[in-house]
Amino acid sequence: MTHNLPLSGARLWDSLMQMARFGGLPGGGCNRQALTDADAEGRRQFIAWGEALGCAVSIDRLGNIRLLRPGRDPARKPVAIGSHLDTVPTGGKFDGVYGVLAGLEILRALHEAGAETEAPIMVIDWTNEEGARFSPPMAASEVAMGIRPEAELLATPERAGPATFGEELARTGFAGSADPAALQDLGAYFETHIEQGPVLEQEGADIGIVTHALGALTLEVTFTGRDGHVGSPMEGRADALAAASEFVLAVDRMARATDGQGIGAVTRLLLTPDARGNIPSGAWMVCSLRHHTQAGLDALVAGVTAEAKAIAALRPGIAAEVVPQWGYPQTAFDPALYGRMEAAAARRGLKARRMACPIGHDAIHVARTLPAALMFIPCHGGLSHNEAESITPEWAEAGLLVLADAVLETAGLVR
Amino acid sequence: MTHNLPLSGARLWDSLMQMARFGGLPGGGCNRQALTDADAEGRRQFIAWGEALGCAVSIDRLGNIRLLRPGRDPARKPVAIGSHLDTVPTGGKFDGVYGVLAGLEILRALHEAGAETEAPIMVIDWTNEEGARFSPPMAASEVAMGIRPEAELLATPERAGPATFGEELARTGFAGSADPAALQDLGAYFETHIEQGPVLEQEGADIGIVTHALGALTLEVTFTGRDGHVGSPMEGRADALAAASEFVLAVDRMARATDGQGIGAVTRLLLTPDARGNIPSGAWMVCSLRHHTQAGLDALVAGVTAEAKAIAALRPGIAAEVVPQWGYPQTAFDPALYGRMEAAAARRGLKARRMACPIGHDAIHVARTLPAALMFIPCHGGLSHNEAESITPEWAEAGLLVLADAVLETAGLVR
Repeated sequence: MTHNLPLSGARLWDSLMQMARFGGLPGGGCNRQALTDADAEGRRQFIAWGEALGCAVSIDRLGNIRLLRPGRDPARKPVAIGSHLDTVPTGGKFDGVYGVLAGLEILRALHEAGAETEAPIMVIDWTNEEGARFSPPMAASEVAMGIRPEAELLATPERAGPATFGEELARTGFAGSADPAALQDLGAYFETHIEQGPVLEQEGADIGIVTHALGALTLEVTFTGRDGHVGSPMEGRADALAAASEFVLAVDRMARATDGQGIGAVTRLLLTPDARGNIPSGAWMVCSLRHHTQAGLDALVAGVTAEAKAIAALRPGIAAEVVPQWGYPQTAFDPALYGRMEAAAARRGLKARRMACPIGHDAIHVARTLPAALMFIPCHGGLSHNEAESITPEWAEAGLLVLADAVLETAGLVR
Repeated sequence: MTHNLPLSGARLWDSLMQMARFGGLPGGGCNRQALTDADAEGRRQFIAWGEALGCAVSIDRLGNIRLLRPGRDPARKPVAIGSHLDTVPTGGKFDGVYGVLAGLEILRALHEAGAETEAPIMVIDWTNEEGARFSPPMAASEVAMGIRPEAELLATPERAGPATFGEELARTGFAGSADPAALQDLGAYFETHIEQGPVLEQEGADIGIVTHALGALTLEVTFTGRDGHVGSPMEGRADALAAASEFVLAVDRMARATDGQGIGAVTRLLLTPDARGNIPSGAWMVCSLRHHTQAGLDALVAGVTAEAKAIAALRPGIAAEVVPQWGYPQTAFDPALYGRMEAAAARRGLKARRMACPIGHDAIHVARTLPAALMFIPCHGGLSHNEAESITPEWAEAGLLVLADAVLETAGLVR
């Protein structure tokens, strides 16, 4: 479809720069961790922008903010656009924010033109996508989609501090009354995001059409040995770190042996007693595994788990424990929806390429429940979760146009 | 020599149990970390016991406490007995304390008998031998012997807190005025300690005569890579933990390849950014190396250092830094002094065996400067730095008798 709505890349860019002042850092990035004062300021700005367009604003019990612009057909379910305004502690200006404000710009263009759509259009700011302050990430969409219990998220403690997710929702004024489960009844869901990888920039592509998300599973792996003075003989030691080191290298080796389909790494490691003069008696690790296919992920998890047990079995006095912690299955996006984005890119003479998504996004949990699409725009050097994260205004505008075309086609722009 | 001084194993045992109440833990051990209130209480008890014997008590600028019992010959230098009253956070009742209170029991027996020695006898409580609160360990003897600068020790920060060694000396009332360097002018130095290893118990031996201390060096080793999202492709990663894991295994392998002469382990490992979703960009480690010979230690240090560089060279984007941190050279004890202990054990029908010391003790720094001897008694299961650390009253008494014989022979007991 073609249309002539007054979508403005400049207005979108200006809003991105305004949002970046909330929690702004000296290096040009943002620290707007979920449900901090800075995040609350940003959220209030987002609500004010939505109210200025006459949108109905609702906040659900998880703090998810929804701007709703009514449609002409009362029978049609909303077509939603979502992402997140929160950042990691030293994040950039675009990760998440771009997807929310691109949705806002579509609402602005419709408002300015006085245009109508058959289906309502909703723009969502998901709470705490990053998970930097409250782990795991993306839990607000996961709970909304009925996959994780609501009470569990509300009780989640902050990583370094005494407060819970629920307490911080209340403190910042975002403990709303709307039912998050209502979001399971959307007609369609669109999300755009910076790629957080180098592929689009390297290939000179404007748009990444995400066909599927790699399945992901995070394991907690603990090797337990025996404490001892570092002066004790080599024989008879039960060194938990030596066992853990074999495990780290095994994960790296097994992920590399998947023909480029699987990825894996140990990202956290804490020792007990962590004392200069003691053989480590415990090594606790976080191991992150991902794979393009669910069968491949299952095999990688099984292989890594067996390897942990085998390492322990070969070392007297060492025990291994592997506990699955958090993740999501391999998830396909909706071909009809991403086909619309692909066609829109072609019509506008933009270069699009299909790709998989190795990184978590709220769109993945949504896609487990209803038709959803995820689209990427390039970012410089693949850099994200970093103050220096950057994109060009041209990339931002191209993504906006493709998103708008697909959303308006789905919602039915009234001629 | 033989003598009939009223040395009392029961009185020694009673004092050990009294000292254990200061910083006593529910599990039967002690938390009497250096210059805490509990340590100060224990030290005041020790001083009170010394004053009750008419000893001259002096405290030097490092908080080392010295009880001095005068000799008959004003030209003779003191014969000293020393160890430490401080413990690790979950320490036992005997590590260190036994050596100090065995010395005190010799003073008590001399006092009770009204006996004289030609040389003065000194009993020393070295401050912060453990290094649990102020790293490195044994620095008070190291500074006293002129090996480490005094100002450096006084400025040492506590591991978890704002205070310095010097501030805590002042706060607890142990910032004395005596010159620690005066301890370089002792005539001889004796130390007894629990073995902290299983050999004596396993062999049914009563006394371990220490011929030498293994040379020891602690390195700080840092691998630096590149931060990245854990969803990034395997190719192009610079994972600092993978490099560190190879290093941990290399240290273990190289120490095992020394024909039982060398030992080594990585005991601490901290990751940057230590975040669930990030490839580790930094891995900081503490690596402890020891060897029976100085040449062997030098070779092990050189080999481990070269291995760190080689691991980095093979991994694009990884850099290695190796910084020697703290240690002591291979150190021989004085054959004349330990020969007296060996002969005393034989006269008393006790089973003694020569052994090396793989663990740090104040006696090592002292032995680098003046004639010194170190002697071990058995402990159950080789267990130390543990609340369950234990010895028998018989082992304690046997060690006391051998120590007293050698000290009195050296100081010249007046008949």
